[in-house]
Amino acid sequence: MIETDALIVGAGPAGLFQAFQLGLQEIRAHIVDVLPHVGGQCAALYADKPIYDIPGVPACTGRELVAALQQQAEPFAPGLHLGQEVTALAAEPDGRWRLVTSSGQAFLARSVFIAAGIGAFEPRRLRIDGLARFEGANLHHHLPDAALLAGRALAIVGGGEDAVAAALQAARAAAPPSSITLVHRKDAFEADARDLAALQALRDAGRVQVAIGQPTGFGADGDRLTHLVLSHAEGPDTRLALDRLLVRQGLSPRLGALAGWGLAMERKQLVVDPASCATALPGVYAVGDVNHYPGKKKLILCAFHEATLAAYDAAERLQTARKVVVEYTTTSTRLHRLLGLAADGGTAPRR
Amino acid sequence: MIETDALIVGAGPAGLFQAFQLGLQEIRAHIVDVLPHVGGQCAALYADKPIYDIPGVPACTGRELVAALQQQAEPFAPGLHLGQEVTALAAEPDGRWRLVTSSGQAFLARSVFIAAGIGAFEPRRLRIDGLARFEGANLHHHLPDAALLAGRALAIVGGGEDAVAAALQAARAAAPPSSITLVHRKDAFEADARDLAALQALRDAGRVQVAIGQPTGFGADGDRLTHLVLSHAEGPDTRLALDRLLVRQGLSPRLGALAGWGLAMERKQLVVDPASCATALPGVYAVGDVNHYPGKKKLILCAFHEATLAAYDAAERLQTARKVVVEYTTTSTRLHRLLGLAADGGTAPRR
Repeated sequence: MIETDALIVGAGPAGLFQAFQLGLQEIRAHIVDVLPHVGGQCAALYADKPIYDIPGVPACTGRELVAALQQQAEPFAPGLHLGQEVTALAAEPDGRWRLVTSSGQAFLARSVFIAAGIGAFEPRRLRIDGLARFEGANLHHHLPDAALLAGRALAIVGGGEDAVAAALQAARAAAPPSSITLVHRKDAFEADARDLAALQALRDAGRVQVAIGQPTGFGADGDRLTHLVLSHAEGPDTRLALDRLLVRQGLSPRLGALAGWGLAMERKQLVVDPASCATALPGVYAVGDVNHYPGKKKLILCAFHEATLAAYDAAERLQTARKVVVEYTTTSTRLHRLLGLAADGGTAPRR
Repeated sequence: MIETDALIVGAGPAGLFQAFQLGLQEIRAHIVDVLPHVGGQCAALYADKPIYDIPGVPACTGRELVAALQQQAEPFAPGLHLGQEVTALAAEPDGRWRLVTSSGQAFLARSVFIAAGIGAFEPRRLRIDGLARFEGANLHHHLPDAALLAGRALAIVGGGEDAVAAALQAARAAAPPSSITLVHRKDAFEADARDLAALQALRDAGRVQVAIGQPTGFGADGDRLTHLVLSHAEGPDTRLALDRLLVRQGLSPRLGALAGWGLAMERKQLVVDPASCATALPGVYAVGDVNHYPGKKKLILCAFHEATLAAYDAAERLQTARKVVVEYTTTSTRLHRLLGLAADGGTAPRR
């Protein structure tokens, strides 16, 4: 059980900047995210793609933005709890909130900031009736350990960078699979030029095959998949024998447990007071793509503003000793101390 | 007369980012600012001071922020009209707004964005009855040309970096004044360490004098000042003879003509609808420190959000041909074209 002033659900740009703004208010925060890394959509969906509308940053990639936001929050050292989803939120008699994650970690939080974006990301499944029961046996959504692949026939479904990268990684293992087959609806893959060139070289060497078709069925022997059935635009279905099936069709968002927390929703978004980003639950805020208010735009720069309003409102709620006024990082000695800067704020900035 | 879709009043961070966001909406803008340069408060008051709360920018100076915002707006080439103040705003019968500046430049604008910060900045005056009539003669608020100072007795009123810098600059002239006297209420000056050391060296060399006292009166010969009267904590008043008086007491904001435009105000701020930053005048928006709505925080990052909401609302008002939806600079080919990028947005970003 971790007791904290603030728990932030989501470690994307909104969640990271929320931790920074709470830090300026002297509110210590923990962050939970379902992904194994910080950055949310920015890191998962467009790590290498440029963004042009972060104010004062003419161009940066998702990865660069996330790194900068992490550095900015660093003086406040938020506790990070990655690879787990918040599954339950319940009010305690003393006004705090009790949250539990899928890893069994429990929190008692005086305030909660839902910065969950468009939801928790999970691998996009292959929609074939009955296929799901092989998860945990020989159906995978992340590349298994090399030991499980050595000498086996591996089939990978997908045509994007995730699928291509998995094929390259498997082929480069010290003890590679006996065969690697990429299954895609057409012989065209989307990945960066270097990975595509590496894939072509492996295909030329006969180490990676490509099977064109749409997976529509499967065969099994007990609790293990033995083959995929592929349908084609013309001609009869074909079979692809396999020992292990890896589905790499990218990520798909899902609001998950949040939807059941009794919060007011509008078109899958949490309704908040635009003056504070407070939800109807006392001490629970929602910031970023997950919230809704009149005029709401789903832009990262709007999330930054929302996280700031929420931090000020939480400071008013949580702090009785200090009057909450707007202070400027350029001039406030209190903020300079919190940021770990020299007393005059200017001579030894932490970069 | 310039006809434009948008006129932005103020070239500070809010005004510059307003031009960028309007550009993404394909709305061409002109910007007017009373200062002779862009950047507003950021450039005038803390050009060299670090700011730590721009999201995704762990530390930058006011100057660096302004340069980045200028670069970001550059693809949309906003028309800049500096060194002039908007003095009049009047509704035209066709729904447009007619604005006139102190330089006589007139605009007919379909929308107006007031990004005037805490007002137009002007040099802080020395408040002595009757002194103002010497402006234009030998009372100055900016350092006069060297030719006007050569061989004359110069008095500079002020204790901050502006006053110290003026003393150093005058002393370094090829033909310096016959004397330079800094007038301040105490023998302590605020400037950076290098300038303070240079000042001390000039004082040690007898090239700059310091007169301690509070200016409370003056003497004149016709239309020219001849001396200042200085009052002291103890003892009788003294006189300081001078040929030219330079008052360098920093800048002071003043809302100016805006206050008379019939806009709803609350505590010197313009009241706006938080969903759009629209004022009660149709097509007139207010963004940044000049506006007010429930929860308003006077922070630069909030101005960025407000400028974005205002741009979307203006696009809805002004454009009938295109449905206004949120698009992302990372993925939209329309936005890539507007930003002058390669078609896929990623391979040749303008830096």
